Amino acid sequence: MHLGAWLGPLCRGLRRPVGRTPQLVRGSLSRRLVLSSRRRIPEFNSFVSRTNTCGELRSSHLGQEVTLCGWIQYRRQNIFLVLRDFHGLVQVIIPQDESSASVKKILCEAPLESVVKVSGTVISRPPGQENPTMPTGEIEIKVKTAELLNACKKLPFEMKDFVKKTEALRLQYRYLDLRSSQMQYNLRLRSEVVMKMREYLCNLHGFVDIETPTLFKRTPGGAKEFLVPSREPGKFYSLPQSPQQFKQLLMVGGLDRYFQVARCYRDEGSKPDRQPEFTQIVDVSSVFRKTEIRFLQDALSKPQGKAKAICVPEGVKHIKRKDIESIKQFAADQFNQEVLPIFLKASRNWNSPVAKLVTEDQRLELIRLMEIQEEDIVLLTAGEHKKTCSLLGKLRLQCADLLETKGMVLRDPAQFSFLWVVDFPLFLPKEESPTELESAHHPFTAPHPSDLHFLYTEPEKVRSQHYDLVLNGSEIGGGSIRIHDAQLQQYILATLLKEDVKLLSHLLQALDHGAPPHGGIALGLDRLMCLITGAPSIRDVIAFPKSFRGHDLMSSAPDSVPVEELRPYHIQVSWPTEAEAEKDSLNQPHQQKS
Amino acid sequence: MHLGAWLGPLCRGLRRPVGRTPQLVRGSLSRRLVLSSRRRIPEFNSFVSRTNTCGELRSSHLGQEVTLCGWIQYRRQNIFLVLRDFHGLVQVIIPQDESSASVKKILCEAPLESVVKVSGTVISRPPGQENPTMPTGEIEIKVKTAELLNACKKLPFEMKDFVKKTEALRLQYRYLDLRSSQMQYNLRLRSEVVMKMREYLCNLHGFVDIETPTLFKRTPGGAKEFLVPSREPGKFYSLPQSPQQFKQLLMVGGLDRYFQVARCYRDEGSKPDRQPEFTQIVDVSSVFRKTEIRFLQDALSKPQGKAKAICVPEGVKHIKRKDIESIKQFAADQFNQEVLPIFLKASRNWNSPVAKLVTEDQRLELIRLMEIQEEDIVLLTAGEHKKTCSLLGKLRLQCADLLETKGMVLRDPAQFSFLWVVDFPLFLPKEESPTELESAHHPFTAPHPSDLHFLYTEPEKVRSQHYDLVLNGSEIGGGSIRIHDAQLQQYILATLLKEDVKLLSHLLQALDHGAPPHGGIALGLDRLMCLITGAPSIRDVIAFPKSFRGHDLMSSAPDSVPVEELRPYHIQVSWPTEAEAEKDSLNQPHQQKS
Repeated sequence: MHLGAWLGPLCRGLRRPVGRTPQLVRGSLSRRLVLSSRRRIPEFNSFVSRTNTCGELRSSHLGQEVTLCGWIQYRRQNIFLVLRDFHGLVQVIIPQDESSASVKKILCEAPLESVVKVSGTVISRPPGQENPTMPTGEIEIKVKTAELLNACKKLPFEMKDFVKKTEALRLQYRYLDLRSSQMQYNLRLRSEVVMKMREYLCNLHGFVDIETPTLFKRTPGGAKEFLVPSREPGKFYSLPQSPQQFKQLLMVGGLDRYFQVARCYRDEGSKPDRQPEFTQIVDVSSVFRKTEIRFLQDALSKPQGKAKAICVPEGVKHIKRKDIESIKQFAADQFNQEVLPIFLKASRNWNSPVAKLVTEDQRLELIRLMEIQEEDIVLLTAGEHKKTCSLLGKLRLQCADLLETKGMVLRDPAQFSFLWVVDFPLFLPKEESPTELESAHHPFTAPHPSDLHFLYTEPEKVRSQHYDLVLNGSEIGGGSIRIHDAQLQQYILATLLKEDVKLLSHLLQALDHGAPPHGGIALGLDRLMCLITGAPSIRDVIAFPKSFRGHDLMSSAPDSVPVEELRPYHIQVSWPTEAEAEKDSLNQPHQQKS
Repeated sequence: MHLGAWLGPLCRGLRRPVGRTPQLVRGSLSRRLVLSSRRRIPEFNSFVSRTNTCGELRSSHLGQEVTLCGWIQYRRQNIFLVLRDFHGLVQVIIPQDESSASVKKILCEAPLESVVKVSGTVISRPPGQENPTMPTGEIEIKVKTAELLNACKKLPFEMKDFVKKTEALRLQYRYLDLRSSQMQYNLRLRSEVVMKMREYLCNLHGFVDIETPTLFKRTPGGAKEFLVPSREPGKFYSLPQSPQQFKQLLMVGGLDRYFQVARCYRDEGSKPDRQPEFTQIVDVSSVFRKTEIRFLQDALSKPQGKAKAICVPEGVKHIKRKDIESIKQFAADQFNQEVLPIFLKASRNWNSPVAKLVTEDQRLELIRLMEIQEEDIVLLTAGEHKKTCSLLGKLRLQCADLLETKGMVLRDPAQFSFLWVVDFPLFLPKEESPTELESAHHPFTAPHPSDLHFLYTEPEKVRSQHYDLVLNGSEIGGGSIRIHDAQLQQYILATLLKEDVKLLSHLLQALDHGAPPHGGIALGLDRLMCLITGAPSIRDVIAFPKSFRGHDLMSSAPDSVPVEELRPYHIQVSWPTEAEAEKDSLNQPHQQKS
């Protein structure tokens, strides 16, 4: 697929330091600055009064008269001052002679984080005072004139150890947080990544960048879209969850190779992470059809019951008895399930009485099914399908953490491992009413061509042409081949899903007017940027993120609106009772991006 | 200013045909296709089953086996078929021999605008049947196999003369309208223009592309922002009119050289065009302080009364007596004002008794003030300042139209003439209450440094650091240097404008924490694209525009929403009375972009 073709080189090309751990990246100021000073910015200083940026000066500039603007990062003994702009840091020498008293006064009295403009000469630092960890560490600026452009009031916190601040404080003073080298790096890298994507799509492959509206009609399937009241009584726009209908209409309109960096609005309430659990599990139910182990017997006697196992390669070397105990404890506490560790050599069973009930035949069958090597550990559990998968997924990550603390390198953060997930079911039974079907992805996804015949007999067996892309274990995107046949779309919407097709009549009509076969993919840019930068939260790769509860902590949005401003939109607030208010506090919106 | 630096070469570089009229551009299919086939798209046919696009085949492809996909544009005598994709047109020969009966059946029975895939050989057209107006006119495709990918139902109109359709029909079937070569050209050109802007800003000048939120807090100053109810009772987000606060906060955050292709949401009701009238007028009140001409006397006796004039160069040659009569009629009908034409030579006054009342001294003073040449006509009017400007602006355009019908080339559409408008007032008297002030632009615009002293004494005299950019007479952008001093901002907001500063406390706080001096500009992309493509309406350069009344005619948004979907947002509809409904129908929203 062509996605890998650009994402791979793109990621490799982004000067991502190899072999680092995410913690190091977030901490290391000077390396960030090395990275950013390598960036080639021709003509950068055109149109501005500064002659240079703070980060670019080197020994090759010695003797030059320069004018710099920046924030006062640090001051020592009223002699040295470190000036910062987005491009880096530079040391400035405050003049001490009588004739420069006014310059000294400005530079010594301005509070930290004030904005100043200085002019002076680039000189070399005295021998022994060079700072090799600072890109501009060989030089300093002998200042002649200085101007205070804007003073800074007392800061709500010290800038330098910003990462130690609470996230709420960081969001409230976002404009200060954005000055940190880490946020500068993340946001500037994001801009570069998006630009590289555009260059690849537009310049190399003739894609066309088209903006689609954000004020649209609500799509069927529930209350996940923000509503926007219009000036017509009772009429509302909605903010689309994604441009999915527009994408299709553009294909029908012949706008081949469309792309867009689009915003998606999802009022998701209590669904903070849509990411499903991905596990490599092996179903071993058949091995244990006849077993004396009670919890396996119990689980497998139920209709949805499965026995499943994961293999921890070379687990014997690193996972000790107390680790196994804590894994078992975790499974019992969190999932109310039992976990049985199995070893290739019977001698390693740590005297578990239950484990001895695994027969030699069963052990051999497991070895065959799971391709177990001598030093591996198998973790076996049983129960309801979904719960079992969830538990083993968690255990797999726990074991990986454990092995990494013992020095094994399992997940190199500098490695980008892509995985396509395919063959999803087209429909799933509705949770609240399992005899009815709902779309596993969305109702526009095309069925797998080999499964078309099931559509009219056993629709639950139909696989979809939906695909997800996973990077280093995180879902970063997904897409599908869409239905281009109006009759098929009508059948799926009306007959199988019992949806109100009137809301989608424009789409059905469009399919009927020569819609070409088409499909696409959407990447989650926020999550992708998290993986590339090693940021712990998508809030670290977004300039002005909302809090988990959907609040803008800086401006305190959402906010009350006077009644007279609601009047043109023909709405009024229905104030909830106290009991209702309590219930509602569980449902909080937030805005997503893809 | 650097704007001209990139916009100029950009516009010149866009392969805009020189000397054409807008009408020609919109009509000429084949030239559009020539333009688009010149576009360099390497590797275009990677990842798809077609081997070529319809528009790219030439004599150099003779003998090649190709697979094409496209829409059936046209069919003649069941022998020829013209296939279209976004890249152009190609002629396909329907096989007539018995063995190809099934291929013939597919190609002859498929309705026009159906999607087909054909494979065959590129052959040359028989001598004399080449079509030199068609880029692929030397060749045709001898088809071997054909597949109907999707049939098209009866079309609501014939595709070929789409431009004759009503705009409502075009918007309702937007996916068909988008297939027209004109819309394909406009939208693909728009994508290229935006890409060139990005390359200039990001790659050449180190700008950083940052997306700012669209769910924000309402800004003070009225009901022009769409509201988005949240799940918290009585709390609303608003869709920002522009990212203006975020722009400033990014500057405070040290994200130097920020740009964004942003959406602006303005619920502007009955304000369809914010474009002010720009006229080059000369104020000639002083010349006529003492005059016997009654309408000048009347006008100048009032406090806001002005006498103003425009000069029509070489007007005598082309503007006849009946033209002058129709100009006078227009002024009387539309503006209830008199217009007096004045000629350098008294003999050309067409015996107007009023014109004879212009004294020789006045005539000479006019000549000096307005630099009149012998063959020019001066059009003079008097009255209230704004009305006079408006009338003369209209007359200026009318005269230009008139002169152009006589063969003079005044406004070459292939020429891009830029104009900066500066020295706007910072404040204007409020229309409803002229003793109070309101911002002429917005309250964040910085005062002109030379006028700072007036701020505390005669604020209405302060000029602003606001600037507008005009291209060929249309405003395409504007911006300002912003206030970076918190005290000054507070004074203007609270003391002069009497705004509630609580709504902006986050901004005032940000300015107090080391905000650098900053400014910027925003271009209206829709209007700019209109000027570049010669499109008559911004709806021709937007993929899915709203109608003038803010409706999406394709999906019929905005739409009703069931009561239960309003409940999570704690709102209910207040249905208006019949009288209120009538009044409201005058206020219609629409969505803008910049």
